[in-house]
Amino acid sequence: MQRYFINKNQIINNTIKIKDNDYHHIKNVMRMKIDDEVIACDQEKSYLCKIISVDDYVNLEIINTLDDNAELLNNVTIAHGLVRREKTEEVIRRLVELGCHKYIPVLMNRSVVRHTNDKQERYMKIIKEASEQSERQKLMEINEIISYKELLALTIHFDLVLFCHTINRQEINLKKVMQSFTGHNILVIIGPEGGFSDNEVKEIMKTKAQLVSLGRRILRTETAPLYVMSILAYEVENEG
Amino acid sequence: MQRYFINKNQIINNTIKIKDNDYHHIKNVMRMKIDDEVIACDQEKSYLCKIISVDDYVNLEIINTLDDNAELLNNVTIAHGLVRREKTEEVIRRLVELGCHKYIPVLMNRSVVRHTNDKQERYMKIIKEASEQSERQKLMEINEIISYKELLALTIHFDLVLFCHTINRQEINLKKVMQSFTGHNILVIIGPEGGFSDNEVKEIMKTKAQLVSLGRRILRTETAPLYVMSILAYEVENEG
Repeated sequence: MQRYFINKNQIINNTIKIKDNDYHHIKNVMRMKIDDEVIACDQEKSYLCKIISVDDYVNLEIINTLDDNAELLNNVTIAHGLVRREKTEEVIRRLVELGCHKYIPVLMNRSVVRHTNDKQERYMKIIKEASEQSERQKLMEINEIISYKELLALTIHFDLVLFCHTINRQEINLKKVMQSFTGHNILVIIGPEGGFSDNEVKEIMKTKAQLVSLGRRILRTETAPLYVMSILAYEVENEG
Repeated sequence: MQRYFINKNQIINNTIKIKDNDYHHIKNVMRMKIDDEVIACDQEKSYLCKIISVDDYVNLEIINTLDDNAELLNNVTIAHGLVRREKTEEVIRRLVELGCHKYIPVLMNRSVVRHTNDKQERYMKIIKEASEQSERQKLMEINEIISYKELLALTIHFDLVLFCHTINRQEINLKKVMQSFTGHNILVIIGPEGGFSDNEVKEIMKTKAQLVSLGRRILRTETAPLYVMSILAYEVENEG
C-alpha cells in the first residue's frame, strides 16, 4: 500500500491533511479516489487511513494505528569520505533500504570532490522516496558535510566505532566484534576512492575506533557502505 | 598493482604475451615501461611479472607465483529475475566485488523487460574490469538468459537453494540456515521488480529451495542481490 511521511502537526482530530508533493502524488499520479486507503507515517507510528475528501488538501481519516516496524533496533551511522554527487545519491538510496539511521559525508584528504551542502534538498527527496518504498517508519538523517577533525570528535558518542580499512591484514574479524557487541549506537567509517591517508589512520587509531576488515576483495568506496550496512542489519535482525 | 586476466595458453616458457585491449591499456593508458611490474592472472594462479619488451605484444616475464587468494571458499550463484540492462550492469559489477561465482538472469512472469543475450560481451567487459579492480583471481561467470523452468531444473545441482521472498513472515531466518550449512554450492533466487508470481512460488516450493527473509524492509530488486551476497561472503569468510 502507498505510504506517505507526514508531520505530527498534520494530525488533527483523527484526520490528516495532505498537501504539496504528496497531494499531487495521491491525486494525479496514483489517481486515488474517496475511500481508497493509504498509510501515513509520522516517524513514530504508522496509520492506516482512508481518503474522505479532496479539496485544497487530500483529507485522510485514520482507521487504525499499525503495528508494523521495519526499523533496526540499533542505530547505525555511516560516515563516508566525500564522493561524487551521483555516487552519494546511489549510496544513500540503498542505505535507506538497508535500515541506516544516519549518513555523514566527511571531507577527507583524498576526497577528489569539493562539493558543498547545496544538494541537501535533493538528497532528502531521495531519502523520502526510498523510505516510502522500503516501508520504513523513520526517515534516514543526512548530515551536512563535516571535516575529519569533527568526525574524530564525534566518535566518543558511539558505543562502537568501526574503522573499515586494511593494513597488512592486521584488522579484526567483523563477526568477532559483532558477537560481543551489546550497545546501541554504531558508527561506521569508510574512506573515499583513494582510501584514508596515513595521517587519517594515525589520528583515528587514537580514538576508540576498531579496525575491521570488509572481506578479502577490494571494495569500491560506493560498495563498502552497502556491504557493512547489510551485515549490520543482518546481525541485528537475526538471532543466532 | 595493475592486474590483468590472461589465458593459460598465453604463458610460454615463463613469459606471457599480452595483446589487444590489455596491450593498449598497459602501453597507452598506464604508459608503463620496461621493468615495470604487473600481476597476471590465469584464473587459477596469480603471477608477479615484469615487462621485458614491447613489440607487437607486451612481453612479460614471470618473477614469481603469488600466494594471494580473494576467492570465497564457497561458490555462490545468483539467479535473478530479468531486469533492465543498466540495473543488470550495476548488479553484476557489485556482485563481482562481493565474490559471486556466477550470475544467471532468469525470465520470470513479472520481468518487464524482454532483452536478449546480445549484451553478453559488454557484461564480460564489466566483469573483467571489476575483477581486476577488486583483485580477484577468477572471473565471475555470467549465464545466458534462462527460463524459470530451466531454473527449477538447476536446483538439484546445489547443496543449498535460498528462495528470497516474503510470505506473511513465515520465511526462515537466514542466519539459522547459514549456521547449519556445511555444503559448497549455494544458489540464491531473487525476483524481478514485481516479485514472484503465485505460480512461480508454488513451483519453487516443490524443489529443495528454502524460503528465506531478507530483513524487515522491502529491498529493491537490484539491492537484494547485494544484501544476500554481502551476508554470504561475510558468513563464509569470518569464522565465529
